Amino acid sequence: MEYNLLSKISGPDDVKSLSGDELTRLCDEIRDIIIDTVSKNGGHLASNLGAVELTVALHRVFSTPEDAIIFDVGHQCYTHKLLTGRFDRFSTIRTKDGLSGFMRPDESEHDAFVTGHSSNSISAAYGIYKAKALSGQKGTAVAVIGDGAMTGGMAYEALNNAGAENSNFIVVLNDNKMSISHNVGAMSRIFSKLRSRPKYHSFKFALNKILFKIPLIGRPIYNFLLHIKEIIKGAVYRNNIFASLGFNYLGPVSGHDIKHMEELFKIAKNYNRPCLIHVVTTKGKGYPYAENKPNNYHGVSPFDIVNGADFEGKVDFSAVAGGALCKIAEENNKVCAVTAAMTSGTGLTEFSKKFGDRFFDVGIAEQHAVTFTAGLAKGGAVPFFAVYSSFLQRGYDQIIHDAAIARLPIKLLVDRAGIVGEDGESHQGIFDVAYLTTIPNVNIYSPCFYSELEALIEQTAQNNELCAIRYPRGCENKNFTDETGGDYNLVSNGGKKAIVTYGRIFSNAVEAVKKLEKTDIIKLNKIFPINEEVYGLLKNYDEIHFFEEGIKSGGIAEHMGSRLSEMQYKGKYTVHAIDGVFVPADNVSSALKTYGLDTQSMIDALS
Amino acid sequence: MEYNLLSKISGPDDVKSLSGDELTRLCDEIRDIIIDTVSKNGGHLASNLGAVELTVALHRVFSTPEDAIIFDVGHQCYTHKLLTGRFDRFSTIRTKDGLSGFMRPDESEHDAFVTGHSSNSISAAYGIYKAKALSGQKGTAVAVIGDGAMTGGMAYEALNNAGAENSNFIVVLNDNKMSISHNVGAMSRIFSKLRSRPKYHSFKFALNKILFKIPLIGRPIYNFLLHIKEIIKGAVYRNNIFASLGFNYLGPVSGHDIKHMEELFKIAKNYNRPCLIHVVTTKGKGYPYAENKPNNYHGVSPFDIVNGADFEGKVDFSAVAGGALCKIAEENNKVCAVTAAMTSGTGLTEFSKKFGDRFFDVGIAEQHAVTFTAGLAKGGAVPFFAVYSSFLQRGYDQIIHDAAIARLPIKLLVDRAGIVGEDGESHQGIFDVAYLTTIPNVNIYSPCFYSELEALIEQTAQNNELCAIRYPRGCENKNFTDETGGDYNLVSNGGKKAIVTYGRIFSNAVEAVKKLEKTDIIKLNKIFPINEEVYGLLKNYDEIHFFEEGIKSGGIAEHMGSRLSEMQYKGKYTVHAIDGVFVPADNVSSALKTYGLDTQSMIDALS
Repeated sequence: MEYNLLSKISGPDDVKSLSGDELTRLCDEIRDIIIDTVSKNGGHLASNLGAVELTVALHRVFSTPEDAIIFDVGHQCYTHKLLTGRFDRFSTIRTKDGLSGFMRPDESEHDAFVTGHSSNSISAAYGIYKAKALSGQKGTAVAVIGDGAMTGGMAYEALNNAGAENSNFIVVLNDNKMSISHNVGAMSRIFSKLRSRPKYHSFKFALNKILFKIPLIGRPIYNFLLHIKEIIKGAVYRNNIFASLGFNYLGPVSGHDIKHMEELFKIAKNYNRPCLIHVVTTKGKGYPYAENKPNNYHGVSPFDIVNGADFEGKVDFSAVAGGALCKIAEENNKVCAVTAAMTSGTGLTEFSKKFGDRFFDVGIAEQHAVTFTAGLAKGGAVPFFAVYSSFLQRGYDQIIHDAAIARLPIKLLVDRAGIVGEDGESHQGIFDVAYLTTIPNVNIYSPCFYSELEALIEQTAQNNELCAIRYPRGCENKNFTDETGGDYNLVSNGGKKAIVTYGRIFSNAVEAVKKLEKTDIIKLNKIFPINEEVYGLLKNYDEIHFFEEGIKSGGIAEHMGSRLSEMQYKGKYTVHAIDGVFVPADNVSSALKTYGLDTQSMIDALS
Repeated sequence: MEYNLLSKISGPDDVKSLSGDELTRLCDEIRDIIIDTVSKNGGHLASNLGAVELTVALHRVFSTPEDAIIFDVGHQCYTHKLLTGRFDRFSTIRTKDGLSGFMRPDESEHDAFVTGHSSNSISAAYGIYKAKALSGQKGTAVAVIGDGAMTGGMAYEALNNAGAENSNFIVVLNDNKMSISHNVGAMSRIFSKLRSRPKYHSFKFALNKILFKIPLIGRPIYNFLLHIKEIIKGAVYRNNIFASLGFNYLGPVSGHDIKHMEELFKIAKNYNRPCLIHVVTTKGKGYPYAENKPNNYHGVSPFDIVNGADFEGKVDFSAVAGGALCKIAEENNKVCAVTAAMTSGTGLTEFSKKFGDRFFDVGIAEQHAVTFTAGLAKGGAVPFFAVYSSFLQRGYDQIIHDAAIARLPIKLLVDRAGIVGEDGESHQGIFDVAYLTTIPNVNIYSPCFYSELEALIEQTAQNNELCAIRYPRGCENKNFTDETGGDYNLVSNGGKKAIVTYGRIFSNAVEAVKKLEKTDIIKLNKIFPINEEVYGLLKNYDEIHFFEEGIKSGGIAEHMGSRLSEMQYKGKYTVHAIDGVFVPADNVSSALKTYGLDTQSMIDALS
């Protein structure tokens, strides 16, 4: 494809000088390159397609990096990347050493803040805004946040803080009528009410036609009138949640009408109160498959552009977890499932259909989700909260305070545990073991196979303990021994060296010992607390090599290492884990190699 | 004092049968015993005094444990304890093996959920509500939440979730016009607007007089009319944040008018939509000192009832931190301070007065606080976020995602680190070291003396690193050696045994080694990462005993233990820390003894 306009955009200034027609063509080119690139690299499609004109309009009114623009989550930042000097490298997105799929300040000065986790943009932008104001720097700060992200409490904390004082701080609500799947909660009702208000803007076009015929002064008068009207409208519309939190509410405006958005952005930029501009966009716009089924095209693997992506029920750990939950829910009507806006991602679609009254999508609200789950347990239910490892970080305090202190037997299904691949730093599930093991009364399991995951879901549903079951993104590796089940398995080859490990890299260990002389494997299934028998076994080895797909500091290998010191173990002990770094985008097998967790690294370490 | 009525209340049923006059006397007795007990044991005074009638009214309409009532934070649960069979043990509150100062399900079936951390009550209550509904149990659930706690995003997440469907779920907003100090943010403006609305209830009293003279049918007609009126009023008042989140808004009503509150609670109990009842209370009510200065009487140490508490500027770690911040702010106008509704508790009162434009109280909103702080750093400021250790748990994800990934040099002043004493489980600062050390790029310091704290604040303000400085509640212990400053100090007695420790229990080690033969002490000041020289020293000891005032799992002692295993250290290594348990209320020195961290325990361990 040719990108005649896009290839000439070296930065936001070039966007500002384009004519209306050129902008239309630019947006077409942007859509083309996004569809083409995501079809090859995978990535976030529907949300990016929805925010093309919005991003163009932002860059025409604001000037990054002087003005900070933060795209919440970053699922809609591809256009921003294309307009800020990264067109040439766009084909590398989500690959090793390539562009990140999210905003990364170390990638460009135009990326004001790290994004990836939802609902942080208003807090970050307001902090930047205040620091600029204090030191007399020019520019404002703009948080662009979706209606889904608006269900996260952090966004509300920030609105409450920023709405309390005069400023020209700006929030753009990108309302695409769904978060990742459809939006949940009362908030979505509010948005649809706001959207359905009479179109106050119709008179504008009449005005437009008349005034613009007057040379020179027509445009300024028009702008002045429009400004007044928007202020009045804001006053009329005061009665919404944003207005009540202190924001001047502007909109709703079509997120595909660049000129109209520009007008509102200009008003906001010069206003003496924080403004919220309500922009209504169509998720997936411009690619019919995505427009019709935006859920399916939220985050996608590489796909065929002509035929669309293939979403036939593939089997992976998430699907297996969802299936197992359905099975026990069939037999026990106390079993409930909770998700924080990740029904499909965590494999709960079937559960949500079959057991609607016991299924709870609480929005992008992990704090609430954990405590709500604890409340369900307190009320006598058997609740499972299925959540991505890196997002559960948001619920750390709630696991301690609301579940563990009172020993409420909630069950955490920790999906995307370990290295996740192309989403990079913010999405890696490498901390859950370290933070969960700090909490008294928590039991952690790390199944390696589907059958183990199914058995653990069945088993933990019946016990009265706080349990976390963690499993990786993707599929099981079939290349394994028969060792399975129980708290641990010993693969004995009669040797004096042992590999200790858990989770999916056990299969790497199985391969490695084939090439090594007499090396045993201890496969941990219940990884915390570790069965005491394991320490009995360990005493007998001259060398113990722990391979852990997770952060080293605070991981199981360290717990074991310290225990070995206390046992006065005299042999050699080595830890192979992710040591003090964040893991950037890369495919999983390459990343495992980088951190010494692949088969060959194991062989090398023990040879 | 005599408690004629209170002593006869064995449970909520006894409250339901009292007459109006008796209720007035009961509330007087409750206030007397709360003031008397808190003056002896310390505790939360002003908030408890404000919620006496509210709690009585709740127990007259609802029936715990069938109905679950959760008092958010628990700063207002003393009356609830007195009315639910705990009058006899009330004098033991906040003492070892005594009543908890917060709600504890293991203490009474009337305590539906653990409280202590703010803003969790709606989530928990809604979870309980749903579980009850699913299994056909009788009863509803009521969350009683203050206006301060309403600034926490979690409360909003829960409202958004609970407001989306029909139910008779109930939230009582206990609006005392301040959180711990005065309320912040836009939300407080909303509350004051709601409070100032015309008193719709005046006609009620006229009605009352007429209708109640009609025998038999007067009361039902009155109730019916009142019911209709409240519904209409709710519709009129729809335009507030709660109504827009789906709640039927009732109120505002005086929180000291039991009858009126009862009426609204009854309406809510039988309503087919979730209801929020806005109750306006006076913090400190009934004790003039507390009523006049509720801030001072939020959480208090034992005091003299007649003369009031003494709040003359006492010197403790918090005050020293605040003073040091003022000093560097004087010299560097980029220095900012952030607090999450803990201005006084974290010693920032002086800073807030001197540097108002660089001081940010963001509400009870630790998530936002961390990211806002990171935003300030990104914008070029030098921001310190002062926060209690146990509350920073709420910001774990934000430290990882918003600060550490981009290496933003925020400074965390982690107050109340270690054992805090009488507040018990929920407030212990025993997890921060374990969870912070899981995060790449974090540097952690644990000053033992005021001078070290001051020096660290000065020093970290100048570096470009993400730093946490943690210090305990209370005062420094002067009984120390001259060893101070740098990453670590070696107190050498030329021995082959070493105690390794950090923070305030170093003084216990100093005392212990006086009684022990040739025992060295390694005092860590920078506790993570540990200076490599320390490991060089450790190799030379036959025995190393690590004493750590924190959770064992994931603590510094375990990091060191694992490293010693990897170094193939051949000596004896022991870890003395808090192992897999939550620490209940007790005074600090007694608790240190319980966990083997006092002087005598050290002597015993090394003898």
